[in-house]
Amino acid sequence: MLGKTFYLPLCPTLQVSMKINEGSYVLLFHTQRKKWLTKAVYEKKMHTHLGIIDMSSIIGMEYGSIIKSTEGKTIYLIQPTTYDFIMKSERKTQIIYPKDLGFIVARTGMKNGSIVLEIGTGSGALTTFMASIVKPSGHIYTFDVNADFIAVAKRNLVKAGVMEFVTSYQYDPHLGLDIKDADVAIVDLGDPWGVITQVYDSIKNSGAFVAICPTFNQLEKTAIELRKNNFVDIESAEIIFRTVEAREGMTRPSNRMIAHTTYLVFARKVSNYPTDLSQEEYLTAE
Amino acid sequence: MLGKTFYLPLCPTLQVSMKINEGSYVLLFHTQRKKWLTKAVYEKKMHTHLGIIDMSSIIGMEYGSIIKSTEGKTIYLIQPTTYDFIMKSERKTQIIYPKDLGFIVARTGMKNGSIVLEIGTGSGALTTFMASIVKPSGHIYTFDVNADFIAVAKRNLVKAGVMEFVTSYQYDPHLGLDIKDADVAIVDLGDPWGVITQVYDSIKNSGAFVAICPTFNQLEKTAIELRKNNFVDIESAEIIFRTVEAREGMTRPSNRMIAHTTYLVFARKVSNYPTDLSQEEYLTAE
Amino acid sequence: MLGKTFYLPLCPTLQVSMKINEGSYVLLFHTQRKKWLTKAVYEKKMHTHLGIIDMSSIIGMEYGSIIKSTEGKTIYLIQPTTYDFIMKSERKTQIIYPKDLGFIVARTGMKNGSIVLEIGTGSGALTTFMASIVKPSGHIYTFDVNADFIAVAKRNLVKAGVMEFVTSYQYDPHLGLDIKDADVAIVDLGDPWGVITQVYDSIKNSGAFVAICPTFNQLEKTAIELRKNNFVDIESAEIIFRTVEAREGMTRPSNRMIAHTTYLVFARKVSNYPTDLSQEEYLTAE
Amino acid sequence: MLGKTFYLPLCPTLQVSMKINEGSYVLLFHTQRKKWLTKAVYEKKMHTHLGIIDMSSIIGMEYGSIIKSTEGKTIYLIQPTTYDFIMKSERKTQIIYPKDLGFIVARTGMKNGSIVLEIGTGSGALTTFMASIVKPSGHIYTFDVNADFIAVAKRNLVKAGVMEFVTSYQYDPHLGLDIKDADVAIVDLGDPWGVITQVYDSIKNSGAFVAICPTFNQLEKTAIELRKNNFVDIESAEIIFRTVEAREGMTRPSNRMIAHTTYLVFARKVSNYPTDLSQEEYLTAE
Repeated sequence: MLGKTFYLPLCPTLQVSMKINEGSYVLLFHTQRKKWLTKAVYEKKMHTHLGIIDMSSIIGMEYGSIIKSTEGKTIYLIQPTTYDFIMKSERKTQIIYPKDLGFIVARTGMKNGSIVLEIGTGSGALTTFMASIVKPSGHIYTFDVNADFIAVAKRNLVKAGVMEFVTSYQYDPHLGLDIKDADVAIVDLGDPWGVITQVYDSIKNSGAFVAICPTFNQLEKTAIELRKNNFVDIESAEIIFRTVEAREGMTRPSNRMIAHTTYLVFARKVSNYPTDLSQEEYLTAE
Repeated sequence: MLGKTFYLPLCPTLQVSMKINEGSYVLLFHTQRKKWLTKAVYEKKMHTHLGIIDMSSIIGMEYGSIIKSTEGKTIYLIQPTTYDFIMKSERKTQIIYPKDLGFIVARTGMKNGSIVLEIGTGSGALTTFMASIVKPSGHIYTFDVNADFIAVAKRNLVKAGVMEFVTSYQYDPHLGLDIKDADVAIVDLGDPWGVITQVYDSIKNSGAFVAICPTFNQLEKTAIELRKNNFVDIESAEIIFRTVEAREGMTRPSNRMIAHTTYLVFARKVSNYPTDLSQEEYLTAE
Repeated sequence: MLGKTFYLPLCPTLQVSMKINEGSYVLLFHTQRKKWLTKAVYEKKMHTHLGIIDMSSIIGMEYGSIIKSTEGKTIYLIQPTTYDFIMKSERKTQIIYPKDLGFIVARTGMKNGSIVLEIGTGSGALTTFMASIVKPSGHIYTFDVNADFIAVAKRNLVKAGVMEFVTSYQYDPHLGLDIKDADVAIVDLGDPWGVITQVYDSIKNSGAFVAICPTFNQLEKTAIELRKNNFVDIESAEIIFRTVEAREGMTRPSNRMIAHTTYLVFARKVSNYPTDLSQEEYLTAE
Repeated sequence: MLGKTFYLPLCPTLQVSMKINEGSYVLLFHTQRKKWLTKAVYEKKMHTHLGIIDMSSIIGMEYGSIIKSTEGKTIYLIQPTTYDFIMKSERKTQIIYPKDLGFIVARTGMKNGSIVLEIGTGSGALTTFMASIVKPSGHIYTFDVNADFIAVAKRNLVKAGVMEFVTSYQYDPHLGLDIKDADVAIVDLGDPWGVITQVYDSIKNSGAFVAICPTFNQLEKTAIELRKNNFVDIESAEIIFRTVEAREGMTRPSNRMIAHTTYLVFARKVSNYPTDLSQEEYLTAE
């Protein structure tokens, strides 16, 4: 099957077990709007408006297989990814969306091995995503004052298989933090500006800071406070996700979209030292 | 300094070596528009329009420290992240930008340990980012027909310290691929639709596909071809990044922005099996 | 009440009759999502989910007055503008939205006195808006092949009080047009490229052309055809409208928005004469 | 040339004089980025980087004709529209752009005959556009405290031929206004919230208000103040203009765009009367 002119050296053939076992999670996918994330368990019947799906019957099948509901509808058996676990997570709070999750990782340079401080666990969507990136040698230390949120987040983290890479505290970081030298800090609180000095003391020099700021008022206050506290490379931004409907000869952007989730404010810590940038120079320079 | 009402158990104090050594990379950061990524080498002088920076003098300093150029300008010594290596990478082609890099990872569920097939290495920006995520147990297999691009990409990968997690081939994947069961395939070619059957055979069942499509025409052709080849969960989208200027009492979006880099087309592979979704149902369902 | 330091010379006090008469249109406004455009008629009762509104009672009141529904809800009696007539128009087709209406006028320089050729009357939203601008000395000549659309458009034009400035034809302009020297032509057809030579012959030299192109495929074909037919200043664009929710200390863009209505393609007619711009020069020059 | 099946009744053939006379304005158009708005005057030579254009030679030619510069470059002789006069206007301030101009007219329902109050004349771009719409029976009353701005605006209005439909005052409307029953008021000041009661007294009941607010902070304060002062139908929004490059088989949005010019805040005046909408109901209702 390979071409004759090019020779492909030493290209690996991987062996991956892709069977759905008793207890495996599976994404029952019909369409983007009709999909269910559930566990393959004997005797379980999923009742959907596309008909009933017999979960016993899929145990032993391979991911990517295709079955029919009792109403004859096609269901694809997809192996769930971190994306699916997040999009189908249990929620007590507004979650951070993939467009924002991805940019947080790309902008901070978070990677395998990173130590991350998260203030505001919420429902754990961001925690889940970051744990999937930093594991196994990195770790997420996450704080929330709300015991209900922590309980939900833990269930979501266990489901996604990343709980062991996360340590969760019920604690208010406004009171001070006993963490040092984290690579990245993420703040998802009503008042990100209220924990900036605490975060400063907890991340390494030249470490990254990100605040989740749904309103422009939070963005403004946070950016101003960062400037006063030895943070540089301050960047406030929004990420907009817009889908396109591809149809032959009739391709166009979708009619509707989510217009706003949150602004993101980025910064990096430097040593405590007077700067020679005037305020005006500072602002135009960013 | 910790609060009295909450007790913070077992919170780790990490010890990180943060010294700039001979041969270390450092980001000389003045402002977002005036920054240089370079190596700390004895005797080296960086000549910039902010004055000369003596690289000898920074060896032994800690990242996050602050120095002055010969013209008295403040320079922050930032430890470069994957983001910095990408933004300052050597380029022979248009690179994929962080807004798109992040979403590719978030949407495909790429994570530590993933096996990735990349068709179209280009200058290696995406390769670098993905390697930072999947290492050490995952791997990137990347293909390009252009030897110059491969050479540039390798230099960028070595600089970012991730070359060992990447295998690079000068080869045209239109001719067929000897890879099986990759978790994710990324296609950055002029004709992504031209390698869809090759990619289908190289990724695992329910594995993810992404095409980089700068034009509408590429998006349309790729999405149509995916529908014909047992891919589901097809989503075409663009990610827009817009900065905000935070100034006390005068906060507003920036005047100018990059309006477009590329569309992204996502899909997941399922078994070869006839579907009962009509074309119309298929389209409205996505 | 006027300041002492400045003297305000000759500023007019206008006298405007603002009474709601029998037969006047009135916008019953509760909120942006709960509003009704109706006629003030004796004995008429408006049944809404905010209670009943007795239309007899408002005759003789002034526009801008405030009444209560039978359920005690506040209803503002707004004098309807062209905007209200359009937003509440009877529809058989997708209408052109205010964001696009406004830009069409601003980009073409349409103004009081303009002669406009409209191909594709649809439900008459654009016709209504343009008539309100060009009247009384200008005129709109509008064409549609669909008798139902024309009937709907006429009812909308009569309601908005601009029918006398519009002449409507049931006719297919692909067959040729007997109009000369129009200032502006607007094309809202499935195939705008199919009437470009007909439009060329019907507008004055240096007159403006606009095509309504919901899909990128229409945009591409139309722009290419314009280049071949002595049109210059070709510009393809989309107008995006995004609302912001203003709340004290919590201001942010709205959660949802309309992502796409249509692309607009603009051009201006020049004499039939060979150009010395190469195709490449042409494209980069636009 | 007309079709046989359809009969086109009474379609007018207009006679328009399209000659360039001594003293006429003409847009010398090469490309969107290379164009000049100037007067056709005997003996005048335009020196451009495309060569010299002899203005004597074009007198007597028809608009839409094509000439060559001394360097052999094609120049189209376009009859300037309001759009051209605005885009090429003399400027002392940031002008309002066509995307915003158009929406202001479409949202307020401004039309032929409207009486408009403009606070903040600036360089007169908006004044010019509105005058072209409301003339001949409507009128613009425009105020600015800055004599330089007024002088520039007057020159722009004279050039565009609409000065007779505008009355301009050097005056600070914070001190009160002697105008009554205007249809629409436009406020382009640093503190739009500071003149809301003055505007309230100057527009008719159910008349429209628009504020030009480049920053979030202005938008927030203005919307809050409008709610306290008997304005309803309050809507804050931004208009985004994004061009698309149409090339056969390679159509895509442009690389760069203007990301932000201004927010617009709309409202309509109602009678002074207590409302039964609670603050919360008010906000969610908008």
